[in-house]
Parts: sequence; structure tokens; C-alpha cells
Amino acid sequence: METSTKSPFTPMEILTPMFDLNTYLSSKQADINHWIQKLFDRELHAGQITAAMRYSVSAGGKRVRPILCIAAAEASGGFQADVMHVACAIEMIHTYSLIHDDLPAMDNDVLRRGKPTAHIQFDEATAVLSGDALLTLAFQILSDPHYVKAAKIPESLQVINNISIAAGCQGMIAGQMLDMLSEGSRLKIDAMRDLHKKKTGALIESSVFAGAVFGGAGDVQMKALDAYAANVGLAFQVLDDILNVRGDPSKMGKAVGSDAHREKSTYPAVLGMAQSEKYARDLVKKALHAIESFDKKSQPLRAIARYIIERNT
Amino acid sequence: METSTKSPFTPMEILTPMFDLNTYLSSKQADINHWIQKLFDRELHAGQITAAMRYSVSAGGKRVRPILCIAAAEASGGFQADVMHVACAIEMIHTYSLIHDDLPAMDNDVLRRGKPTAHIQFDEATAVLSGDALLTLAFQILSDPHYVKAAKIPESLQVINNISIAAGCQGMIAGQMLDMLSEGSRLKIDAMRDLHKKKTGALIESSVFAGAVFGGAGDVQMKALDAYAANVGLAFQVLDDILNVRGDPSKMGKAVGSDAHREKSTYPAVLGMAQSEKYARDLVKKALHAIESFDKKSQPLRAIARYIIERNT
Repeated sequence: METSTKSPFTPMEILTPMFDLNTYLSSKQADINHWIQKLFDRELHAGQITAAMRYSVSAGGKRVRPILCIAAAEASGGFQADVMHVACAIEMIHTYSLIHDDLPAMDNDVLRRGKPTAHIQFDEATAVLSGDALLTLAFQILSDPHYVKAAKIPESLQVINNISIAAGCQGMIAGQMLDMLSEGSRLKIDAMRDLHKKKTGALIESSVFAGAVFGGAGDVQMKALDAYAANVGLAFQVLDDILNVRGDPSKMGKAVGSDAHREKSTYPAVLGMAQSEKYARDLVKKALHAIESFDKKSQPLRAIARYIIERNT
Repeated sequence: METSTKSPFTPMEILTPMFDLNTYLSSKQADINHWIQKLFDRELHAGQITAAMRYSVSAGGKRVRPILCIAAAEASGGFQADVMHVACAIEMIHTYSLIHDDLPAMDNDVLRRGKPTAHIQFDEATAVLSGDALLTLAFQILSDPHYVKAAKIPESLQVINNISIAAGCQGMIAGQMLDMLSEGSRLKIDAMRDLHKKKTGALIESSVFAGAVFGGAGDVQMKALDAYAANVGLAFQVLDDILNVRGDPSKMGKAVGSDAHREKSTYPAVLGMAQSEKYARDLVKKALHAIESFDKKSQPLRAIARYIIERNT
């Protein structure tokens, strides 16, 4: 945890009593991985498509979105058990987007998290279909009476609507299209922010929203969590760009410098490294400020925001 | 309408008083096309993805699934207005599946309904993303409070679950995978039926189910409509295979004989042409039998079942 004199955080943040983020993250990752396996075992038959779905979802992601969903539910006074199926569904949507982004016709990546991408490990048709299937399975799970308590039917429909807007052609898909169209041209900072708000921000915001809805957040809490999520989502992308320049390839699981090679507009390229780091810190400060009135059940959310700018993978 | 002495239909069917299917189909197609445009105008911003979405959905499909959805709602005592957003969402899912099936890595088709396929008209990345976006938009519409009346929230969640199962990796996507894997090998009739039940039958059944749920069908009606849909869905595929052999290419909008060229297992190839035609007639008879106790509001469903084996495109 950040406790040095160079800390960008308020004294309140620094003085938060012992909260071990690493233990929290490992524990939630284990829960999420267990739940995803359980969902797969219940919903999927044998076959090449389902093998590809399992392969990509199990390729070792950090589970940032489902953890944010759980942490937002907890911060709102709810429980992990209320949102576990939602958290897993969101991770499936995230994974589908990675599979399709990696396709030869898109980013043409052969490596993801240190493992062959889906179209390399299987083939292109299987990759397309397994992505389609993960997206579809997410909506199946979000609407499955086995997971949705009767009292939570309206919330489920609200969350399905929010997630589909975030993942759709005005959100994540628009972001991927902008990303591809902008390769080779230098974007201005506003255009870059718009791209990232769509490509990665929208689903991160939706993860927090879903957690808040199922956790029972009131209007004021909801607004605060929205602001938290918007800032955290953007900070997450800025750090991704920074790590793409200076990260450790053995830890990143993909080639360092690949953004520059592709002439992608990145924060370090547009703002410079020092300004990018400052920008990320400012965003995290804003995220922490948004939820400063929350009680100690919001510790995980605070720690995750700080972790974003401290991580090295 | 079939009135000759060779009619495979029961006297009751033949004596159904004047119902003009062509007028019904044209009127519903116009309503559906109008609604899809309205939905697009409300939900989509300008851009290449949305242009591709509009292009593919407007490429002139017969709107079989949304019409079945509407007709099932009417047969259950409901109204077209209750299910219009559902009918359009299902057509979007159907269109997404065609876009992805046509991709170079899958069926590699350049022509669909007489027009260039999406990846030819645009490019491959745009085709993949516009398919993803149509699938996602369907779920957005199915959960949108603008279209879902408060009293229909549980029904909406039930229909989302049913559609996502039908369209997912145990349904339509599994069918497409089986279809690709089976190219070049001769399937037995049971395996072929399983393939088609998944690839085309599942979403047709889901269209009827959605109409029945929103139309307020009771348990007995629901069971009858399920049987109707299962038989109609299969008959539809058998006729597709028959028309692929003997159809008029100018009317089909795609190459006649393409199934044989690809060594796809088809009903005419496995059963012979005469047996295939008999099989289709028997399926339609079963479909009509399933709903024989329904009142005259089921006329469209009856006429559609007969139309399946009388169509030439």
C-alpha cells in the first residue's frame, strides 16, 4: 500500500486501517474462477466451441471487472453472493471482446496473457463462434431463473440493459472500431479519451453499476459509484498504455512496445510519460474523492483504485 | 392456397375461410421493416458499424422469424404491438448469425439475398463487429424500459433467457459448428435433424415461444405452439435444402446447387427428392395438427405452415 511521503492520496486514504488488497484480490479471483467453472460445467456440453470458451476465459485474466462488480456490491451494503453470476457474465463479455479483437481481421494478435490467442490455439471460425457464444451465454446467465432471485427480476432487466448498451455499438464495439480506424494517425487527447471511454471504460462502469444495483445502492451512492467507475476506468487505460511502453514483457504476457509498433495513439505518446503518470494519479484521486463518504465496506474499491496506478502488469 | 385433391391437409384446413396469406405477409413485413428502421434511428449513431448493421438487416429477408413471433402472439390472444420489439430483436439475432456464417473463415459466401455479404460490402472487421453489435442490440432492446411495459418485466426476462439459450452454444452456434464440421461427410438422418434443430430450428422455436409468452398463452397453448414451432422449423430447413437443388437462382438470391458443391449433407442428398418432399409435408401436417384446437386467430400460423412447403424462394 502507498504510504510514502510521495503519496498522491489524502491523509484519510493513507490512514485507512490495514486492508490487505493482495489477499482480497486473490480470494476474489479464486471465487470468480471457481464460479465460472461451475457455470460452465452446468451450462456447457462437450465440443470444440465450449473447449474454446473455457480456454479463453481460463487464460488467466486479472478479473478486474468482476472484482469491481463484487466490491461495488459490498460498498453498497450488499453481498458477493448477490452478484456472483453477474460478475462472471461480465467477465465472459470481456473475454469475448478480447477473442474478437485478437482476430486476424482486427488486431491480429497471436499472444494474449502469454498464451496463444483463440484463433491460433483453435482456428478462426472457432474463435469467432466461441466469442459469439460467450456473449450469448452472458445474457443467458443474467436472465437464468436458477441465478436470478424472483425479487431481483427488475434489477436483472435493468442490468442487462445497462450492460448491453455498454458492450454495444455505442460503447465497447464503437471503441474497438475507433481504435482500428485510428491506427497510424495521432489522436488528440479528447478523441483518445472518447475512444477509451467506449472501448474499456463503458464495461468497467457497467461492472460497478451492476454491483451497485444488486447491492442495493441508493441514488446518491449510485451517482458516487458512477463517478468512481468513470475515473477508475480511464485510469486503468492510461496505466495500460504506460505499461505497454515500460512494462516487463515476462509479466505482461504480450509484447511490450506493441502499441508504438502499431502507431496507436497512447497517453505516453500524446502527453509524455510524466504527464501520463500525473494524469493517472489525478484520475485515481477523483475516484477516491467520489466515494469518500462511504463507510469501511468500500475499502476494496479504494484499494483497487490505488492498485491501478501501482501495478506493474 | 392448397385446394387440389392432392392436398396433404385435413378438410378443416382446406375449408378455412378466405385468408390471404400474401397480404398478411406483406403487411407484417412492412410493419417489421418500419419498426426496425425506427429502432435503428432511435438507438444508432452514424458510423461504419451502424451502416453495416443497417445494410445487413435491410438486405431483404423474408422476416419469417418475426412474423412467426407476431402470429404466435395473435394466436395466443395477444396483439402485434405487444411483441413488435421482440420480433425485431429476433430478426437482428438472425441477421447477426448470417453475417458471421458468411465470413471467409466460415462459409465464405460473397452473396446473400442477391447482394454482397457484409464483409464484401464493407470489410471483415466491420462484418464481425456489426454482427456482434446486432446481437448485443437485440438484448438491449429486449431489456429496454422504453419498450418493455412494467407488467411484462418477468416475461421479458423469461424471453431473454429462452432466446439466449436458442442462439447460444447449445443451439444456433452449435448448429453452425456442426454444419462446418460435417462438410464433406455424409450425415445420417438423425445427425442431420439434430444439426438443423440447432442451426435453424432453435431460433424459430424461440420466435414462437416469445410470441406466445407476450401474447399470454396458457400452458396448454404453449405446449401446442412448441410442437407447432418444432415441426415448422424442421420443415423450413427441409424446403431450404430442396430449393437449393431445384430453385430459381434469380429468385433465391444465391447460387443454386451450392450445398452439393460444398458436399453439405442435405435432405435431398440423404433421403432423395421425393422422400424429402413427403417428409416436409408430414412435418407441416404435424404442425397443423398441434394447433388444430386454436380459434381463427391462428389462421396466420396455419397459412405460414402451408406456405413453407409451397414457396419457391
